[in-house]
Parts: sequence; C-alpha cells; structure tokens
Amino acid sequence: MKFVTTNIHKFEEVRTMLKEFGINIERVELKISEVRGTNEEIAMDAALKAYSIIKEPLIVEDSGLFINALNGFPGEFSKWVYNKIKPEGILKLMEGVKDRSAYFKAVVAYTDGKEIKTFTGIVEGSISYEEKGNKGFAFDVIFVPEGYSKTFAEMPEVKAKISHRVKAFKEFGKWFVKRQTYEF
Amino acid sequence: MKFVTTNIHKFEEVRTMLKEFGINIERVELKISEVRGTNEEIAMDAALKAYSIIKEPLIVEDSGLFINALNGFPGEFSKWVYNKIKPEGILKLMEGVKDRSAYFKAVVAYTDGKEIKTFTGIVEGSISYEEKGNKGFAFDVIFVPEGYSKTFAEMPEVKAKISHRVKAFKEFGKWFVKRQTYEF
Repeated sequence: MKFVTTNIHKFEEVRTMLKEFGINIERVELKISEVRGTNEEIAMDAALKAYSIIKEPLIVEDSGLFINALNGFPGEFSKWVYNKIKPEGILKLMEGVKDRSAYFKAVVAYTDGKEIKTFTGIVEGSISYEEKGNKGFAFDVIFVPEGYSKTFAEMPEVKAKISHRVKAFKEFGKWFVKRQTYEF
Repeated sequence: MKFVTTNIHKFEEVRTMLKEFGINIERVELKISEVRGTNEEIAMDAALKAYSIIKEPLIVEDSGLFINALNGFPGEFSKWVYNKIKPEGILKLMEGVKDRSAYFKAVVAYTDGKEIKTFTGIVEGSISYEEKGNKGFAFDVIFVPEGYSKTFAEMPEVKAKISHRVKAFKEFGKWFVKRQTYEF
C-alpha cells in the first residue's frame, strides 16, 4: 500500500506502526492541491486526488492542533500557521489566557478506488507556557498531553504510544486487517 | 454581469464603483469550495467554479492582509484568521514588534467562459497599536494606510478612494471598457 506524504519522519513513524498489523507501506510524494475544510474533508479530497494519479490502494493523513480559547485556531491550517508565526506566535496569543485546553487531531483517509474511509485519532491536552523539547514536529514543543507534565517534544517515546496519529493509524490498521479476513 | 459574493456591503461598494465605467452588476450567492493558494489562485479557481454553475460572465474577488513581520500572516487566510483570533489576536502577535509594515491586497478574477483574467490592487500601510473606528470590515480597525494617521475603519471616505479593492476593481473596469470597444 502507498502512503502519500512528503514528510519522511512521519512516514517512518507510520511504517513501524503498521508493520505490527502486517501492513507494508511505501512512500509516495505527490504535489496535490489541498481544499479548505475540516481535516476529514482535506484527507478525503487528497486521497481521491492521489488515487486518480497512482491508481493503487493508498492512505493519506491530515492533522491539526485545536486550541479551545482561540476558537480552534490553528486547526486545519496548523502547518501553514506554524510556518508563519511558529510556536512563539501561539504562546503570544495565549498570554494571559486561563483556559489552555487544546487537542491534536489526526485523520487518516484510505481509498482503493472503490471505497473511501476515514479514521480519526484525538489526544487531549493543554498549551504550555514555554517551548520545551526537541523542535521538529511543529507544535509538539508547546503541547502537554493530559496526565503528563511534559510536552510531546520532551517525550517522544510517550508520544509514539498515545499520539493522535498513533490512534488514527491503529484504528485504520484494525479495520484493514479485519476487512482482509472477510475477503476470504 | 454577475458578481459572486456573499457580502452585501462589498457588493454595494463595488456596484457604485463599476457604475462609473457603465458596468452594471448583479449579486449572486453561491457556496463554492475554496482551494488553498494565493489570492490570485483562489479568485481564479472560484471564478471557474462559479462559471460552471451560472454560465454567464462574472467576477469574484479575494483579498487579504499581509503583515511583513509575521511572514505575510494572515494573508490568504485573513477571513478565517479573523473569525478565529480577531484583530485583538493580531495586536497580541504584534506586541513588541518594531516593523509594523503591512499591506492589503485584493484580486478580482473575471471570466466569460472563454478567457479568465485577474486584476490586483495593493495598498501599503502599517498595523496600529490599538483597534480604532467602526468594526465591520475585518482588519480595517488596525490598518493605517501610508500617508495617514488613522485606520481604514476611522475614515471610510478615504478608504472608498484608495483601498486595495478600489484599485483592483478600477483596473478591471478600465480593461473591460477598452475590451468592449475592441469588439466592434
């Protein structure tokens, strides 16, 4: 199966995860024009566009950080907002804000040209008061998952177990394996 | 000619302006899925989608506020950013920032099904230190055009003469009138 992503780190993370389900993936890089919409709409649209090009079963993923006090900002535009104002900008927007609750959401879309399905993973947490941990995965340096006191960027091992992305891909993995079985 | 917009105030503003060129417009409201891209790409894409539905010559407009110190944020996503963090959020992001330069850009796209053309208007200025003037037109309350000391929201008469939108529609008007003449 193909995983359409430009992000090599994300690909490696997902490859290891799906191997546990016996699913082997290969990375494909495609320039796809994205629609505006929810993560679900973006992922489904990207999956269909990618399928029309590569014509093989594939998955794509779209995710975002949703901050409640900012009406869900940066949400579906997280990657774009990250490039413009960085975690520093988010911390500035959150200065003096008491409700720091936020969540990360990931949506995986799968299509084989006959059907299309999405799988959602959410991890609740809060926005820290300063950037902490290794930079790299965008807003991980300012996101503290519920039940922990460190940011995702400070504890990659924990993230690898409880993240929104892990949850979404595990949902997909379970469904896909079950589905294969039914095909006999 | 049709002007595809959900904004009645914008429609009235443009209607008066284009009347000077002898161009009469009617308002059409359509739900169109927007692409992500530059204002030019968004306007062109929206014009083509609208044409496929109404099949008559039409114009659409897309605009944004670009703040240099924020790498062009909120830019093409100005309307969305406005709904999420309001002018208040922009002022927070600009706290302690010396370079307050910014510009408004408007792009008008015209199509008659045979050709498609865009017209751009830009007005330079800077971000104020507080919100001033009548609320309504999004970021007008924090934008001071070059050569003035008040915000767009404080001086609607000035805005009606020098705005990015006026400039873009005048470019369109001039081109359209000339083009009509050539058709004889």
